[in-house]
Amino acid sequence: MSEVVRKASLARQTAPRLGLLTTAQKNAALLRMADALVAEAESIIEANAEDLHRGRENGTSPSLLDRLALNLPRIEAIAQGLREVAELPDPIGDTLEAFERPNGLQIRKIRVPLGVIGIIYEARPNVTVDAAGLCLKTGNAVVLRGGSSALSSNKRIVEVLHNALAGTDIPPDALQLVLDPNRSSVDEMLKLNGLLDVLIPRGGASLIQNVVKNATVPVIETGAGICHTYIDESANPDMALQIAINAKVQRPSVCNSMETLLLHRRFAEAHLPTFAEQFIQQQVELRGDESALLLAPGLSLASQEDWDTEYSDYILNIRVVDGLDEALDHIRAHGTMHSECIVTENAENAARFLQEVDAAAVYHNASTRFTDGFEFGFGAEIGISTQKLHARGPMGLPALTSSKYCVTGSGQIRG
Amino acid sequence: MSEVVRKASLARQTAPRLGLLTTAQKNAALLRMADALVAEAESIIEANAEDLHRGRENGTSPSLLDRLALNLPRIEAIAQGLREVAELPDPIGDTLEAFERPNGLQIRKIRVPLGVIGIIYEARPNVTVDAAGLCLKTGNAVVLRGGSSALSSNKRIVEVLHNALAGTDIPPDALQLVLDPNRSSVDEMLKLNGLLDVLIPRGGASLIQNVVKNATVPVIETGAGICHTYIDESANPDMALQIAINAKVQRPSVCNSMETLLLHRRFAEAHLPTFAEQFIQQQVELRGDESALLLAPGLSLASQEDWDTEYSDYILNIRVVDGLDEALDHIRAHGTMHSECIVTENAENAARFLQEVDAAAVYHNASTRFTDGFEFGFGAEIGISTQKLHARGPMGLPALTSSKYCVTGSGQIRG
Repeated sequence: MSEVVRKASLARQTAPRLGLLTTAQKNAALLRMADALVAEAESIIEANAEDLHRGRENGTSPSLLDRLALNLPRIEAIAQGLREVAELPDPIGDTLEAFERPNGLQIRKIRVPLGVIGIIYEARPNVTVDAAGLCLKTGNAVVLRGGSSALSSNKRIVEVLHNALAGTDIPPDALQLVLDPNRSSVDEMLKLNGLLDVLIPRGGASLIQNVVKNATVPVIETGAGICHTYIDESANPDMALQIAINAKVQRPSVCNSMETLLLHRRFAEAHLPTFAEQFIQQQVELRGDESALLLAPGLSLASQEDWDTEYSDYILNIRVVDGLDEALDHIRAHGTMHSECIVTENAENAARFLQEVDAAAVYHNASTRFTDGFEFGFGAEIGISTQKLHARGPMGLPALTSSKYCVTGSGQIRG
Repeated sequence: MSEVVRKASLARQTAPRLGLLTTAQKNAALLRMADALVAEAESIIEANAEDLHRGRENGTSPSLLDRLALNLPRIEAIAQGLREVAELPDPIGDTLEAFERPNGLQIRKIRVPLGVIGIIYEARPNVTVDAAGLCLKTGNAVVLRGGSSALSSNKRIVEVLHNALAGTDIPPDALQLVLDPNRSSVDEMLKLNGLLDVLIPRGGASLIQNVVKNATVPVIETGAGICHTYIDESANPDMALQIAINAKVQRPSVCNSMETLLLHRRFAEAHLPTFAEQFIQQQVELRGDESALLLAPGLSLASQEDWDTEYSDYILNIRVVDGLDEALDHIRAHGTMHSECIVTENAENAARFLQEVDAAAVYHNASTRFTDGFEFGFGAEIGISTQKLHARGPMGLPALTSSKYCVTGSGQIRG
């Protein structure tokens, strides 16, 4: 039996018991996990040093090394995250619907755990703890398969968490980490129907596409965001500039940042030079269509491909459009249904944009950067779903649950 | 471009428009479709005769031919189904959540269509109309791929529906029927990410497993049901007998019928002979474990495989267990998480069963045959989901929807 099958089977065996735990039992375990991470911070930092050393030897970029690095403040922040998850309301057992049928059957729809969740992710070791906390809080077992670059850190973190769980009502086997760094261990997870109930990939586009294209286990797709901000003719220029700058540069590497700015022609004629100047001042490289190039200096001509590229970097496409309809068409053709924004003082155009744009989150007069479980007030986030099934947009604890119908009768049979 | 890609593309192009239709516009179209089916019943029956003729030549069984056959009352019933869907509340546009963040952002979660739904199904031509009606009512476009045995019927039905839609606000292209009877057209649908948002297979286990195992488009799995009824020591014997008989013989061919009866040993000692006699009188072949064989005549020994078989027929497994825990273990090992029942007068055991059994529908003192969208009062059913993502159990109109977050601000940017 392979490591993946063995560990998924162990996790599966704990699922019935996990589903019966009380909120207090689960929270007590989460707090123990948090305490243990801080108490064992030194050994985690030592393990992390091995990953960093290997990374440097392999020529990993400084920015990736920074994402990988753990220190005491970071470990304390990760532990604090677990404590905050413990504070969140537990969705398990909630009654979602309750009704009586004319024949007297009492039907209740109850929230239950999904069962066993597989998480396939890349570098950052904080995901190991975050994902474990969110899954266990919702009564799910979890099989983690992190990136090989963080293997030593992840291994030590999970050892610490296992030791902490040993003194709680959550069986340690509910948390599994796949150590096999070969791609084949991922391939195996993708087909584990019956042992895994759902897969959540977290990472870059190629990781996610591999999971989406090859998994037979149901997947919640997260990630890719080619987000647009459309500045309408009537937009308040100061507000528009602030929102556009924020959407691009506040954190360009994340999925809810803007890749393309669409400007109404009359707005562009008046304001594109200022906008371009401001973006260039923020170190943003600008690529535009021909109209944009005529209106402001400092832009290079965007290629066809650019409109379909998630830069996740200080690069921005700018296109001039004749109005809302052309903006909607552009978004339909090039968007990834993640986050889209209109800046306008025209209520009718705002309403049309909110209704007609098909995306997880649609904004009027606010930065697309708000598409985030914490910013939405969910208190947690397992990822941002970009698919339409099950969950869409930022996923908090309820996205990690399913439901069942409990039917109480008095001898009813079907006629 | 293949037929499948061409038709899915046409359907996709209608999706934005469909999502904006009012309930009145959609209902008017559904009523037109219903009227047209009745008005054109004669030509549909003629087309159906071709299918029946081909079926008889191919040696199709009488029961399958009966499922395939259309006549005026059946067509009127199908049309009536569309009228009932028109009467149902339209979930699209419903506000699922609404809240304000401390920074003033107003966030609303709104129900929206899924987009384009692919339905892959077998013989019965009524599914063509049912599925079309439910998808269009929820603002979804639909690509139907029915079985080749009903091809002439389906083709004529869709022609009739297209003609009816031509005079309505639903573009006829929103409804597509794949005519290519080759298996390759199914294979192609399974990979149409970007054109199809979800696939719903309806039919036998092999059809469903093919879709689940090979689709890269998200799937809602429906179908397989190995359902158990557990008769506890304290059960009312008359109630238990009625529920067990109903669960097995009221319609053995469907997924919510019982395959295995679990009997508490003391209950079995007192009542198995009567139960066996009653089942045999109903033409049910009985297969039991060794204990059951010792307690009643007329049973043959069940094989290991029998406990994992969905007979969908007049065959029943009977196992004697020592109590609730053994029943729960058996269900965990052999159930398909569809519908499970306990008959008991012991409130504590009932509560444990309802909580601990992981299935779409769990019953206390009622027949598993009630797992059905109409019996649950949903007024419609696109299938019974046996997966945990998105929808679980009988699926009514809300199962055909997704959601989006509409965020209204006044210039908020992320700090």
